[in-house]
Amino acid sequence: MTPVKSRVTVVGSGNWGSVAAKLIASNTLRLNSFHDEVRMWVYEEKLPTGEKLTQVINRTNENVKYLPGVKLGKNVVADPDLENAVKNANMLVFVTPHQFMEGICKRLVGKIMPNAEAISLIKGMEVKREGPCMISSLISDHLGVNCCVLMGANIANEIAVEKFSEATVGYRKDKQTADQWVHLFNTSYFMVSAVQDVEGVELCGTLKNVVALAAGFVDGLDMGNNTKAAIMRIGLREMKAISKLLFPTVKDSTFFESCGVADLITTCLGGRNRKCAEAFARNGGKRSFDELEAEMLQGQKLQGVSTAKEVYEVLSHRKWLELFPLFSTVHEICIGHLPPTAIVKYREQPPKFSIVEGSIQLF
Amino acid sequence: MTPVKSRVTVVGSGNWGSVAAKLIASNTLRLNSFHDEVRMWVYEEKLPTGEKLTQVINRTNENVKYLPGVKLGKNVVADPDLENAVKNANMLVFVTPHQFMEGICKRLVGKIMPNAEAISLIKGMEVKREGPCMISSLISDHLGVNCCVLMGANIANEIAVEKFSEATVGYRKDKQTADQWVHLFNTSYFMVSAVQDVEGVELCGTLKNVVALAAGFVDGLDMGNNTKAAIMRIGLREMKAISKLLFPTVKDSTFFESCGVADLITTCLGGRNRKCAEAFARNGGKRSFDELEAEMLQGQKLQGVSTAKEVYEVLSHRKWLELFPLFSTVHEICIGHLPPTAIVKYREQPPKFSIVEGSIQLF
Repeated sequence: MTPVKSRVTVVGSGNWGSVAAKLIASNTLRLNSFHDEVRMWVYEEKLPTGEKLTQVINRTNENVKYLPGVKLGKNVVADPDLENAVKNANMLVFVTPHQFMEGICKRLVGKIMPNAEAISLIKGMEVKREGPCMISSLISDHLGVNCCVLMGANIANEIAVEKFSEATVGYRKDKQTADQWVHLFNTSYFMVSAVQDVEGVELCGTLKNVVALAAGFVDGLDMGNNTKAAIMRIGLREMKAISKLLFPTVKDSTFFESCGVADLITTCLGGRNRKCAEAFARNGGKRSFDELEAEMLQGQKLQGVSTAKEVYEVLSHRKWLELFPLFSTVHEICIGHLPPTAIVKYREQPPKFSIVEGSIQLF
Repeated sequence: MTPVKSRVTVVGSGNWGSVAAKLIASNTLRLNSFHDEVRMWVYEEKLPTGEKLTQVINRTNENVKYLPGVKLGKNVVADPDLENAVKNANMLVFVTPHQFMEGICKRLVGKIMPNAEAISLIKGMEVKREGPCMISSLISDHLGVNCCVLMGANIANEIAVEKFSEATVGYRKDKQTADQWVHLFNTSYFMVSAVQDVEGVELCGTLKNVVALAAGFVDGLDMGNNTKAAIMRIGLREMKAISKLLFPTVKDSTFFESCGVADLITTCLGGRNRKCAEAFARNGGKRSFDELEAEMLQGQKLQGVSTAKEVYEVLSHRKWLELFPLFSTVHEICIGHLPPTAIVKYREQPPKFSIVEGSIQLF
């Protein structure tokens, strides 16, 4: 009996979704355990030429709108029909902007294969007062599937041109499925490893943006690499501490993975959160983030500013503000309650607590 | 009975030594547990004006040669006589170039107070085939004193102008002494914390220079932040792995401290190792490090290149080369056996071993 081959569908076709499809398509051709074809759900758009985006992708093998100049592979098939795109797939890769995920999940209820496995590449979940609203949980809960995550230092355009990079798969229990995702994504220039810590991996992808704002303030104040490195380190420590407080299963070691320290470094060196925060500090906080965003980002929104606010609400609600001086200072700078120079003015308050059987012991 | 006050002497007066004296002098004035005066041993030099360096320091409160423009504090006393400088001190701060330490230790045998405590701020110990020759051990062994270390993201000139930074004190057993060192160095802009891991802290200060070469190659090849972040992360992992193999007491958590991730970031963003490695890669490896050093560093030597060689010898001697693809590749690039592009061409070989009761279990 021939073992059943897996069929992969990528739900999403933006910049990162297209790169993911390219990575996957190179592997499904190479590996016997996958069907060659990779279906990619594309939110249909009419291009200035009058053609439909899916038609152009299928004719040229390029996502001319979101990843021009890069061949995705002939085995990538763009499909404008969401239900049709997923109906035969047992491996579903979600890579849309996070605000669309709830709607997509609702549309997919009852439409996917019963044994399907999912993975989320979506960074930037919302953090509600009660705690983070993990995209992987959203997918699991709506669709009744196991959902892994893939995060890391992944600037789509750099991976598209095959510059060396890494990523981390976070999985819950099933190591075998995690390994299958690793095989599906791993290439000679994109090295993927798996850790058993969905929440830790997923939280890194969101929280790093708050630290990137702090790093941007340091840049805008011309404080030098030394200070920037110190702020990034304190930020990493707070990322680790809040993740462990919210999910006691989160592992320290996850923060040494690509999703942790490497993604943090990339985001604090480049990235739009850092860039706008630098401009904010250079203007002494006198021009708001809304104004700078509008001017610098052509309509894109900064995730860091809203995540900082959300994190602040969690900290405030749980009475943890003083344990997280960097996170709380970033938010207070963003809303104008503190000047940008405050980013280095707090006294360090290393989170003084331990977690005993899931509850916090302050000391 | 009045408690006995501690007397501090700084052995060394280069750029970092002068900044250390400044930090310490601000605290001895402020804290009751220390005598105000901080003695600083200065290797005497005649300045172009004909004056002696110690005389100018004592007249102007500035180290005009190694830290011009920065007041050290009136309570810093420069002393050209090494034996005289240390004779009444019970807290000795060593901060000289590492190649001078053995000679200094030999001169100090029998000349220091019997109850003295020492701390080393010296980065860049040698790594011999049998293992690293820790400066803290050199001091302990020669002088029969307990020796802590202080490492971290410490660019002397940035701390001199009171830019925010951090540092890590590594101690062996005596937490109380470690806390005293923390009090002596800690200021509002220089935040110091202590960890019980001398070897881990000290090894970070040396091994980071090898990773900085790797980061410089990535810069010289214009590979972007994503690749650079990945290489820095792999480097941090190898720093952690080799430290734990050499000293099974080394803690993972040390690498999250300032001495670990923060110093690595600073060194891979600025720093002369990174800079020369960038130039090396831009020249396709066709101009040797010796040549680039001579041209770019005004006679200073690159620690990273010799450390990479020393680490390679340890790895080779212990048959660990394949466990450390980044460290070994850096050395092979430095000596021209591999092209700079090899820095991202190895296949990742995550060190597959565990340490059981101090010996390695490969699997």
